Amino acid sequence: MMTQIESATQGRITEEMKRVALAEGIDEEVVRERVANGEIVIMRSVGIGKGLRTKINANIGTSSVAVDPALEVEKAKVAVKCGADTVSDLSMGGDIDGIRREILQAVSVPITTVPIYQAVVRCSFQKMAQKDIIETIRKQVMDGVSSIVIHAGFVLETLPLLKERTMGMVSKGGAFTAAWMLEHNSENPFQEGFDDILDIVHDNDVVLSLGNAMRSGCVHDMQDGPQLQEIKANTELADRANDAGIQVIIEGMGGHIWARDIEKYVKYHKEVTRNRPLFVAGPLPIDVAVGYDHIAACVGASLASGAGADYLCAVTPSEHLALPDLEHVREGVIAFRIAAHIGDTIKYGLSDRDLKLAMMRRGRNWEGQFKFALDEERAREIHSQEGCTMCGEYCALEIMDKYLGS
Amino acid sequence: MMTQIESATQGRITEEMKRVALAEGIDEEVVRERVANGEIVIMRSVGIGKGLRTKINANIGTSSVAVDPALEVEKAKVAVKCGADTVSDLSMGGDIDGIRREILQAVSVPITTVPIYQAVVRCSFQKMAQKDIIETIRKQVMDGVSSIVIHAGFVLETLPLLKERTMGMVSKGGAFTAAWMLEHNSENPFQEGFDDILDIVHDNDVVLSLGNAMRSGCVHDMQDGPQLQEIKANTELADRANDAGIQVIIEGMGGHIWARDIEKYVKYHKEVTRNRPLFVAGPLPIDVAVGYDHIAACVGASLASGAGADYLCAVTPSEHLALPDLEHVREGVIAFRIAAHIGDTIKYGLSDRDLKLAMMRRGRNWEGQFKFALDEERAREIHSQEGCTMCGEYCALEIMDKYLGS
Repeated sequence: MMTQIESATQGRITEEMKRVALAEGIDEEVVRERVANGEIVIMRSVGIGKGLRTKINANIGTSSVAVDPALEVEKAKVAVKCGADTVSDLSMGGDIDGIRREILQAVSVPITTVPIYQAVVRCSFQKMAQKDIIETIRKQVMDGVSSIVIHAGFVLETLPLLKERTMGMVSKGGAFTAAWMLEHNSENPFQEGFDDILDIVHDNDVVLSLGNAMRSGCVHDMQDGPQLQEIKANTELADRANDAGIQVIIEGMGGHIWARDIEKYVKYHKEVTRNRPLFVAGPLPIDVAVGYDHIAACVGASLASGAGADYLCAVTPSEHLALPDLEHVREGVIAFRIAAHIGDTIKYGLSDRDLKLAMMRRGRNWEGQFKFALDEERAREIHSQEGCTMCGEYCALEIMDKYLGS
Repeated sequence: MMTQIESATQGRITEEMKRVALAEGIDEEVVRERVANGEIVIMRSVGIGKGLRTKINANIGTSSVAVDPALEVEKAKVAVKCGADTVSDLSMGGDIDGIRREILQAVSVPITTVPIYQAVVRCSFQKMAQKDIIETIRKQVMDGVSSIVIHAGFVLETLPLLKERTMGMVSKGGAFTAAWMLEHNSENPFQEGFDDILDIVHDNDVVLSLGNAMRSGCVHDMQDGPQLQEIKANTELADRANDAGIQVIIEGMGGHIWARDIEKYVKYHKEVTRNRPLFVAGPLPIDVAVGYDHIAACVGASLASGAGADYLCAVTPSEHLALPDLEHVREGVIAFRIAAHIGDTIKYGLSDRDLKLAMMRRGRNWEGQFKFALDEERAREIHSQEGCTMCGEYCALEIMDKYLGS
């Protein structure tokens, strides 16, 4: 079997490339070329990268203190129903293998995992060996995940620099990797085992997502050496992976970033990584919106996608507080569909869908408005059967139609 | 009695200027100078304008088909509790005088009204005379409102140009004014009666808010002649009002604006109006977020305030669908506190409050985090008594503290 990159490099347009081209309304040959040079990745039939609609990921999964597998499956379904393009199963509690397999059965979108999460639960930092991490990757890949995250972009020497920060390291996968490195005084296990990992993901054409371990945990932790080094290290790994026929997403510019800096750093990231698909968690432009981080992150993600981020990780209202419930997952995904849509209007210009909705609104056609709304159900819920209660007979549109003509 | 502008022009620093200077941490003399030249207005003790924290207004009030005065009073209280700096009573149903007076009693923040709303309910477009509008202004001013909105920045000749737009005119006060002008083939009643209006507001030092009748009703209705003419017309009226000792806010760049254009047009508005306090409704950068317009508008308002808007009108989830309920008012105000805070970090730099929250988060001090959160109650609601269920024992912060030291 040839991977997408191998096919693309040989000039062959795959079924997946055709589906992406059709879904996005762009040329098949353009998709092929960008897959070949690493600017676009395809997971199942979801294309992510240059010239494509901004995509959204929803995080779900149990934690060690909140284990309800059926609820996590339900969250995956709700996320997809609300428009998540992909789902990440970050489970760390209960029967992790069973939960992952259930989620893979329950939804058809690409599923991402962070294998070190399961390795840590199984082994503890003390007992875990590098081969345990590699074996967990193998198992998760064999189960059919579309992408795995590894935190490979830093070395031991970098870690003391994090003490300069207010928040240190806030990436969970990054912290697990760092803790293992410090415990064993070993270098980054994903760098050391990189060739083995490439072999494993190659056979299933699994996308390698190079994690953003160094993201900042508060807006006052500005972009620093460890962050910028990670971008370069991940770019080098991406080159090696692409050369081996493996598709790569680079995560970066996530976490907490001053609003004034988001555009600048997203553009910098895209430039350094030579336009590799950029996955961004958030970013949050302020820290104080506790309980509403989905709204604050929607602002940051609008700016990030407008500046070139290709793929956004939804933040929920329960970020920093608790594992999200079903409603939180829904709210997070919708807030990020809004961000992705705003970002796309910045990247690509205004959308027809907004114009169609406006024309329905002008004509007071409620069914038409619901049809073009991002979340039809919610719009119907708020709107009353008796018509719009906002203005009643004093509707500006009706009055102007009467006096000026429609 | 001297108005704020008259005092400021004579070099006198009033009690109100002192309170604004204290609340904002800036020099009293700077406040005086900016009040004198029209860059800052003071309503009660709320300062709005250059160098001050971005302020938020919440719209409440009955409509002709949804009349529950007690609920509107409750909305005013909830809005203030959540952080609205001012409240606008836009009532058009029931005992409008009674509702306004109850709201004035119930909350101590400045109250704004749009007098033509009540005039239209009382008179209809056919029977209403210019003196009815003026008398309504007088009555509302005598009741103690802090600011009134008039839609004075357009003339008859402009109205046919609106037929070029997808949405025409969507400002309710603008549409009432236009309908009256077209019905009577008369020029703008607020321009014609401007001197009378200045006389009325002068005695109570009521702020004149020059309404944004020409705002666009969808993102595809780009900034056009009528919008740009309105800014110029409102600036000329502002000059006349300031000369008469009356404080002025100019509304503009509200409605629906392509995200790419928001910064540019806000800066243009501030320039043309010579830095008059700018009040913005929204703006919404997309049309399809029906039911979540508070979130989409939070993005637009973050950009607008970051670019220089001084005063934001909160948008609720029920915008375009229904009169907001209590929960919608709450959600709208919080979303706009987020926008104002993000805007302030763009205007003035990062805030200490975010740093304090981050330090509490680093120390896993939950009470400290709640204390610095924008909405303490909501943060507590989501957080479980048993601790953070997001990661349980696998908290990145705890692990890094263990391995790297805190």
